[in-house]
Amino acid sequence: MTPDLGKLESSFSGRLLTSADDMQPFLTDWRRKWTGAAIAVAQPDTTDDVAAVMRWCHTHRVPVVPHGGNTGLSGAATPDASGESLVLSTARLKNIRKVDKANDTITVEAGVTLLDVQKAARAEERLFPLSLAAEGSCTIGGNLATNAGGVQVLRYGNARELCLGLEVVTCDGRIWDGLRGLRKDNSGYSLRDLFIGAEGTLGIITAAVLKLFPLPAAQVAAFAAVPTPAAAVELLQRCQAKLGASLTAFELVGQEGLALVEKHVSATRRPLDDESPWYVLIEVSDAESEEHARAAIEAVLMASFEDELISDAALSSSISQFNEMWALRENVSESQGAEGPTIKHDIAIPISGLAKFIEQAHRDIATRYPELRQVVFGHLGDGNLHYNLSPPAQSGNGGDKQDFAALEAPVNKLVHDLVVNYGGSISAEHGLGVLRRDEAQRYKASVELDIMRAIKSALDPFNLMNPGKVMS
Amino acid sequence: MTPDLGKLESSFSGRLLTSADDMQPFLTDWRRKWTGAAIAVAQPDTTDDVAAVMRWCHTHRVPVVPHGGNTGLSGAATPDASGESLVLSTARLKNIRKVDKANDTITVEAGVTLLDVQKAARAEERLFPLSLAAEGSCTIGGNLATNAGGVQVLRYGNARELCLGLEVVTCDGRIWDGLRGLRKDNSGYSLRDLFIGAEGTLGIITAAVLKLFPLPAAQVAAFAAVPTPAAAVELLQRCQAKLGASLTAFELVGQEGLALVEKHVSATRRPLDDESPWYVLIEVSDAESEEHARAAIEAVLMASFEDELISDAALSSSISQFNEMWALRENVSESQGAEGPTIKHDIAIPISGLAKFIEQAHRDIATRYPELRQVVFGHLGDGNLHYNLSPPAQSGNGGDKQDFAALEAPVNKLVHDLVVNYGGSISAEHGLGVLRRDEAQRYKASVELDIMRAIKSALDPFNLMNPGKVMS
Repeated sequence: MTPDLGKLESSFSGRLLTSADDMQPFLTDWRRKWTGAAIAVAQPDTTDDVAAVMRWCHTHRVPVVPHGGNTGLSGAATPDASGESLVLSTARLKNIRKVDKANDTITVEAGVTLLDVQKAARAEERLFPLSLAAEGSCTIGGNLATNAGGVQVLRYGNARELCLGLEVVTCDGRIWDGLRGLRKDNSGYSLRDLFIGAEGTLGIITAAVLKLFPLPAAQVAAFAAVPTPAAAVELLQRCQAKLGASLTAFELVGQEGLALVEKHVSATRRPLDDESPWYVLIEVSDAESEEHARAAIEAVLMASFEDELISDAALSSSISQFNEMWALRENVSESQGAEGPTIKHDIAIPISGLAKFIEQAHRDIATRYPELRQVVFGHLGDGNLHYNLSPPAQSGNGGDKQDFAALEAPVNKLVHDLVVNYGGSISAEHGLGVLRRDEAQRYKASVELDIMRAIKSALDPFNLMNPGKVMS
Repeated sequence: MTPDLGKLESSFSGRLLTSADDMQPFLTDWRRKWTGAAIAVAQPDTTDDVAAVMRWCHTHRVPVVPHGGNTGLSGAATPDASGESLVLSTARLKNIRKVDKANDTITVEAGVTLLDVQKAARAEERLFPLSLAAEGSCTIGGNLATNAGGVQVLRYGNARELCLGLEVVTCDGRIWDGLRGLRKDNSGYSLRDLFIGAEGTLGIITAAVLKLFPLPAAQVAAFAAVPTPAAAVELLQRCQAKLGASLTAFELVGQEGLALVEKHVSATRRPLDDESPWYVLIEVSDAESEEHARAAIEAVLMASFEDELISDAALSSSISQFNEMWALRENVSESQGAEGPTIKHDIAIPISGLAKFIEQAHRDIATRYPELRQVVFGHLGDGNLHYNLSPPAQSGNGGDKQDFAALEAPVNKLVHDLVVNYGGSISAEHGLGVLRRDEAQRYKASVELDIMRAIKSALDPFNLMNPGKVMS
């Protein structure tokens, strides 16, 4: 029996989308990997309206799929095929409620895009450091629900570390006002940290208090050629020792990835003449001046050149050069997509094991799947790699695509078995969603799964909050 | 019916203390504010032994009180008077399991003291930045169970932010191995963050992976006289803007507190000639050199002097001066104790409201309790104050002590009502234990308490884990 949508519509202010055309954008993820169905898409105007929607869902036992900017990579925001769920879109929760400059905090609603949070901070001469490729469309609610990472984690931490307080609507439509702007608060269990990263399976994040930081006086990027991942790790250690907290990013790109950027992105200029199997992008953010930043990174690079850790390096000398260097790194994923289908991995390894891991993964894949191209890049400073694979360059027609798709499961298993052997994570920053749910259940100890299930049952006894995501 | 302790004793390796003399140190907190009783004190040798003890307790429905260095200020580690609990001391979980220099992590067991963690890090030329007055005796297990704060939170965060992974024994004696040394891991609920700060009410922390940092090249302290708390907050903002991450501590001390240190601690040397109502202690940790650190802080102080934010300032020019300045701040609490009984508060306020809060609290207390001395000090950079009160200087005999003790509840209420009005926390870094349990329940919204209780029931259905702490 379909519950009465008319009653739902009159219970909250906002929009209720029910036609197939209106709902379509909410039923498929942006990579078009998953497609589902829903009884309706609700877009409540306020937190009270979210609560009203949740109460209706709770009364009628209608499952709810929270939906932010639809930029997730693990399928957590797409409903399943049953058509029984309601999609709850945070698109209209758009208010920046407060910027508290003296407290270095900003209070925003879940539907504000990451870019708009960054801009609001900048307008007050503050930095909100969370930064990732989808920042123009992803929302802060989704960033928190998935504990987003990105390129500044090395210095500022993940979304979790950038959040001081939350407002959350529970499965039965109650509002928890945990919007505290405090650096220290030990007055009970950290519910904030439980909702962060739970991918909407424990409650709906409707607003958050986020940390702000001083804007750096200057930023400089360096692009350096390194012979091996081991040399890159050694260079990272030197940068950490010499640059301290002004080291704000340390990214790795393999030659294979850089070549794809040069092929698919017009006007790409490689900053170094010679080819190298690996490159690193180093970002320095300085509280003093550009001169101070340049002197610090130049000293590290010079010594590392002498010790043959790097074979060549270039420093950005203008904002456009800075942006060009970053584009080399940020366009890898898109360029690989332009090349054809991709088998993606989002893994983290303790940094002490990273170089050996890359070596072994490279060898194992090359042995078992010699036709695959290994496009390895990522946030080396966090131990987080996107260890991605492309089919051979000459392929791309229908038949080959199917062969390639059939490789996804065994290649995932090869890579993830190795990750677990190295004490790593099979989902560093993208979350489990449905993509990694079953694998995570296979790798996790039963005691951890039991605790997670106990918490889920305690907070969502009817399994209405994004069911089937994170855990089956 | 008393359960069979013989069976318990043979079930694990370690020590089981049962005589009154042996148990005595575990039954009273170090301030002697709470005293309880226990059926025994168990000191297991390993995590497996902790699990064996927990299984026995679970089978016999014996409540367990985890016990670390016994330095807590909220009574969380002291059993109640029923005599039915077992105290589980982590004193023999003393191993430093691993220092992973390249990963900047250290893996330690719960009973290692904070000082020993710091020393082990330093031996590898790394910094473990958690730092607090009790560091010589408090244990890392207790630090994590209470999410300890201290003097470096401004730069490095609370214990929570310094922990990457945990090993925990559950109420029924299962071991969760969550000892991951990863900066990024989004593969499920953050159980780590749930156990941190839960004060032993959800499980026993037996080991942890902690973050390490580069040692600073130089540290400089400045001691500055400020006319008002508002000037101190303004100075903090300037330091944050100009010093960035090299600002590692920003502490406030009122004149009343400094006078007590001069009275009770021999060889105290005040670094400034003139008296001021307020002082701040600023610590700069520099990745480059002492000259660089001095130049940076001198520039801020000079400009602030010209703008009349500070009336005088001194910079440390040797390690002994650096330590002397810190001693002025760190001896306030002890000196106030030497003066007689103390009514303590451990509060946090958004920094934007801090100066007004101090002004209003000062006025309200002076109006209603003009005889009380207000000894205000704390971690201004985190918005965390120890807003403590002493009886009049001439008092101190038995009768007056009783009068003073009777003031504790109404003064707590006055201060904490005001804290909540300012959007603050009544327990910034000390935890709830039993000291703030009932107050927290009064101030917290029912939805938050309901979620906390649901989690507690889910993870500890028989209420055996430190019952009566955090929540009643």
